[in-house]
Amino acid sequence: MSPKENRSDPLVLFMPSGKRGRFPVGTPVLDAARSLGVYVESVCGGRATCGRCQITVQEGSFAKHQIVSKNENLSPKGPKEERYEQIRGLPEGRRLSCSSQILGDLVVDVPQDTVINAQVVRKAATDRIIERNAAVQLCYVEVEEPDMHKPLGDLDRLKAVLQKDWGWKDLLIAPHLIPQLQGILRKGNWAVTAAIHRDMDSSRPFIVGLWPGLKNEAYGIACDIGSTTIAMHLVSLLSGRIAASSGTSNPQIRFGEDLMSRVSYVMMNPDGREAMTKAVREAINGLIGKVCEEGNVDRHDILDAVFVANPIMHHLFLGIDPTELGQAPFALAVSGALQYWAHEIEIDVNRGARVYLLPCIAGHVGADAAGATLAEGPYRQDRMMLLVDVGTNAEIVLGNRQRVVAASSPTGPAFEGAEISSGQRAAPGAIERVRIDPVTLEPKFRVIGVDAWSDEAGFSEAAAAVGVTGICGSAIIEVVAEMYLSGIISEDGVVDGGMAERSPRIIPNGRTFSYLLHDGEQRITVTQNDVRAIQLAKAALYAGIKLLMEKQGVEHVDTIRFAGAFGSFIDPKYAMVLGLIPDCDLDEVKAVGNAAGTGALMALLNRGHRREIEETVKKIEKIETALESKFQEHFVYAMALPNKVDRFPKLSAVVTLPERKVLSDDGGEGGGRRRRRSRE
Amino acid sequence: MSPKENRSDPLVLFMPSGKRGRFPVGTPVLDAARSLGVYVESVCGGRATCGRCQITVQEGSFAKHQIVSKNENLSPKGPKEERYEQIRGLPEGRRLSCSSQILGDLVVDVPQDTVINAQVVRKAATDRIIERNAAVQLCYVEVEEPDMHKPLGDLDRLKAVLQKDWGWKDLLIAPHLIPQLQGILRKGNWAVTAAIHRDMDSSRPFIVGLWPGLKNEAYGIACDIGSTTIAMHLVSLLSGRIAASSGTSNPQIRFGEDLMSRVSYVMMNPDGREAMTKAVREAINGLIGKVCEEGNVDRHDILDAVFVANPIMHHLFLGIDPTELGQAPFALAVSGALQYWAHEIEIDVNRGARVYLLPCIAGHVGADAAGATLAEGPYRQDRMMLLVDVGTNAEIVLGNRQRVVAASSPTGPAFEGAEISSGQRAAPGAIERVRIDPVTLEPKFRVIGVDAWSDEAGFSEAAAAVGVTGICGSAIIEVVAEMYLSGIISEDGVVDGGMAERSPRIIPNGRTFSYLLHDGEQRITVTQNDVRAIQLAKAALYAGIKLLMEKQGVEHVDTIRFAGAFGSFIDPKYAMVLGLIPDCDLDEVKAVGNAAGTGALMALLNRGHRREIEETVKKIEKIETALESKFQEHFVYAMALPNKVDRFPKLSAVVTLPERKVLSDDGGEGGGRRRRRSRE
Repeated sequence: MSPKENRSDPLVLFMPSGKRGRFPVGTPVLDAARSLGVYVESVCGGRATCGRCQITVQEGSFAKHQIVSKNENLSPKGPKEERYEQIRGLPEGRRLSCSSQILGDLVVDVPQDTVINAQVVRKAATDRIIERNAAVQLCYVEVEEPDMHKPLGDLDRLKAVLQKDWGWKDLLIAPHLIPQLQGILRKGNWAVTAAIHRDMDSSRPFIVGLWPGLKNEAYGIACDIGSTTIAMHLVSLLSGRIAASSGTSNPQIRFGEDLMSRVSYVMMNPDGREAMTKAVREAINGLIGKVCEEGNVDRHDILDAVFVANPIMHHLFLGIDPTELGQAPFALAVSGALQYWAHEIEIDVNRGARVYLLPCIAGHVGADAAGATLAEGPYRQDRMMLLVDVGTNAEIVLGNRQRVVAASSPTGPAFEGAEISSGQRAAPGAIERVRIDPVTLEPKFRVIGVDAWSDEAGFSEAAAAVGVTGICGSAIIEVVAEMYLSGIISEDGVVDGGMAERSPRIIPNGRTFSYLLHDGEQRITVTQNDVRAIQLAKAALYAGIKLLMEKQGVEHVDTIRFAGAFGSFIDPKYAMVLGLIPDCDLDEVKAVGNAAGTGALMALLNRGHRREIEETVKKIEKIETALESKFQEHFVYAMALPNKVDRFPKLSAVVTLPERKVLSDDGGEGGGRRRRRSRE
Repeated sequence: MSPKENRSDPLVLFMPSGKRGRFPVGTPVLDAARSLGVYVESVCGGRATCGRCQITVQEGSFAKHQIVSKNENLSPKGPKEERYEQIRGLPEGRRLSCSSQILGDLVVDVPQDTVINAQVVRKAATDRIIERNAAVQLCYVEVEEPDMHKPLGDLDRLKAVLQKDWGWKDLLIAPHLIPQLQGILRKGNWAVTAAIHRDMDSSRPFIVGLWPGLKNEAYGIACDIGSTTIAMHLVSLLSGRIAASSGTSNPQIRFGEDLMSRVSYVMMNPDGREAMTKAVREAINGLIGKVCEEGNVDRHDILDAVFVANPIMHHLFLGIDPTELGQAPFALAVSGALQYWAHEIEIDVNRGARVYLLPCIAGHVGADAAGATLAEGPYRQDRMMLLVDVGTNAEIVLGNRQRVVAASSPTGPAFEGAEISSGQRAAPGAIERVRIDPVTLEPKFRVIGVDAWSDEAGFSEAAAAVGVTGICGSAIIEVVAEMYLSGIISEDGVVDGGMAERSPRIIPNGRTFSYLLHDGEQRITVTQNDVRAIQLAKAALYAGIKLLMEKQGVEHVDTIRFAGAFGSFIDPKYAMVLGLIPDCDLDEVKAVGNAAGTGALMALLNRGHRREIEETVKKIEKIETALESKFQEHFVYAMALPNKVDRFPKLSAVVTLPERKVLSDDGGEGGGRRRRRSRE
């Protein structure tokens, strides 16, 4: 249609893609869209029965495009479309593109129902629209009945009509469907809907599902298997609508809180690997049940699944022994993207469903980092973007359109509240925000589950219900930063015992001093060791970032993305005050929630994103921090607050950083070798 | 190498392929063979350790090719080859082609170890050589060790070296191997042998097996699932050597002797299909155990399998309900070729093994007929070949290079001894050969298990041991033909009661007469009804053949092949006297044994044969005898012996056919409608 355009033909512009072309009067809008490569779903193949191909006309004068678009330039509803509207209903202004013909110039809106706002975490990522191009497509066909003159088998006639009506060549079929074919075809009176998987790693498209008559819905799941939490989206592959999002804790925690203790469990217990694989698969199946219940979806309508995970979870999920990841050279069994039949890895959805796993970047930079990279797309822009996913290991990606580098850094679990005397998980009762008056050194804080600050009316009453039980990860950053800003600790992180004269909150603790944050049923203090743990963690993170900045040859980064739950809760200002991240406009530091999960969702809804991340990961340069001689030097400088050598001019413009004040303490230095830990 | 040949380079001719080319002095023979597309096995990739690439030099002057070939034109054995010879031994004259360089003109013989002589049946098919090009290839590689600087996974490095050393692109891997990779690579100290399946229906090659170090053997099975008997070859995929051939009875017999009674069983019993599928798969697994024991092969070394079967067995084997095949329009669920992972259909061999099923031709012309067609190859020659596989249904293929047509004809079970009063299976005690003296009308016969004819010395003593229990299929043909030749029955098949005066062997039996063949412990007679049953069966077969001859527009056929056990035992002369088959030179009527199984073996050893039969079956024209108006007319004519209208000039030159003698009987005519039966 479009290759030989006639200048007198109507001009049609499709939004949001912006693709445009001229088409002869009478061309169905669906055909016009397809000929331009504009993705409009259709299951029934233009029979006006599935209702999937809806569009709307944007009326008005579009001077830039020289189009005056009006509803009259689309043919009025015909009998088929009216019948559909009568039976199923059409929202105001919506038309079926298969049944509406182009009569004049048009601006056509293709509704994109998929809007991600990372629902699993509190701070929403920027809403984003994912263009749909799912791996699975539903195709309604009417199969020729068997005929003694033409002894082609049922399957062979089904394939023939799928080629004739939908253009599928060289189709294969999932083996479990072969014995079911006869019954389905006859039950549907030779009219059936086939689910075609067109993104098989083996190249040829597969018939993965088959239903009698018109089947008008198919779902997919996108899942991030974290060490602590497993998060999942359930989404319609046809409309892109997110039907449910939920999470569950990873039951492997009973084998070990952090990843390395799980690796140890595998090494020590002969059936440890099997037990952990079973546990994570069961949890995922349970979570599928949960999202299906929330979304009111039959789990057998799930036809596709995308998973991301850190390398150790990735391996355990696939039944691979993760021991090699626990020791140099941290060898991945598999790094490339993988596909399975869901049942091959015991995922209980439709028997014909496929599972796609994003590639891993390196032994400590997993498919989750690949997912976050896909979601945030440093490689899609000119600015130098720093993407940080903080866990037990921090996964760090730095780059732009020209070049992307990645590394992991052994931050340890301090950021998550472990190794901190009063640390705890983010849960009701946990302190999540802290401010310290620089004059009185008195704190005020907020507790999860209580709206008021601790110095506000009604706090005590409300807090009595949940208690004040500890400090969660975000508040640890804030309290240490506030201690630094108020002079309680020095640039080198020493709690200033001299201040004990000024405030009863500075209290001796053996040979060092602590800060008393709360004295209630539980006495919550920040000890010298707590400060040291945070320093070690943030120094490891910053040293990793610095290494990547050196590889890129840059002195500063343009924009920073904090992925993961931790990133969603911390205040970028305090992160920068402590020197977790390099100096940057505070406006450019953004929490993006579960970016890994968002990447999984993108790969689920658009198979083009699979190729995109596969190609990107091949090009990402992996830096092994353990092999870089300068890591140690960066680490030592980064022990200081915010840093011994690096300046923070943009931060200083907003926050008054203390004068230098160097104290000695008995806690020793902080630049020693640390045991590597994988990210959670 | 060969594209730009230098006229001064040595000329090398490979036999038996006849491919030739010029190669620079010093070129390894293996490389030369590969560049010409001559198939020479090699597992170790030229390391002189697997010994698979053996060749011999044919010495002498080959005037036609202008080659004087001598051993000196091959480089002498180097240290690697000598080391191989020391450890493993080399047969006289054999050289390792990877380690021998071309020094001058050569005629090189590539030993082809596969010689089929259908061992399952008594009469051997013509020995034939199958050029090898198996779907599975073993490839030894040395994988790069993991390196922190290059974080590619183990699998990804394995794929990289398989591409580098062996040219495999876009490799996939069987999922079960993923968790095993790490262990195998490390056990082999990074040297492993991968089995590559290069004939996956999904196009991309798969790693289907992986072993530490050098794995130097892989096997395949070729299996014909008959209704009565399951026959299997176990063969080395590397050398083509048949390690064992064996058979077992199909345990489905307990659900019904013939195929239609099995279909009825499925229809009447809710779990009937499952039970029969289970039974046949168990029998196949048992038979695999048997051939593996005979061949001293580990069943887990079986990496590929090819199956043929009639349509009903094909469906039951795959778990498909065969009910549709029992009624018009006899719809196959699947007609095209199929592939599975062996474990998907519960075949217990190597977990990475694949199963290939030849295509079915039509609802009653199955993958077994396709196998026989592949083996005998009517489409490969100019002469008009008739290929008949007689069972409960006869499968008939007629054609040549130009055109091939096929049909099935409902012969019923008479040829197998069913519906015959004294009929029985071919087993000790069964009469297998019969002669009747035309003057005395006295018979002589041979019994299975006894060497002597019944009129020879020692017969009675020997027969006493096995008994004389009945008439098997081949003898039924003979006895009826001999009765006709001796005038006991007329051209119309009526037993001549008038002859009772001449011989006490013509005995009344109600309103008709019988012929007394043997009067011992069991009284064995041939009744009028027996003759009628044979007439009905042979008329159905002949009418089907005639239809195909009409479609082809031929009056006679050039050559006839009898496939199947029945064909192996009957005497072509008697088959022609009875008019089972059209007139033809008796020398051109050949039994080819289990041609279906031979076809399966060909498809196992050479994947090119898979494409060949897939393409051939697409082109074969299927004739549904039930829809052809002339079938009835041909059937009626064919009730006569040998035929009412067709002459048998070539037969008459060898056998004196009786004058016409028309009698009436009370048994009625024989042209009525008959219930369709599937072939056994």
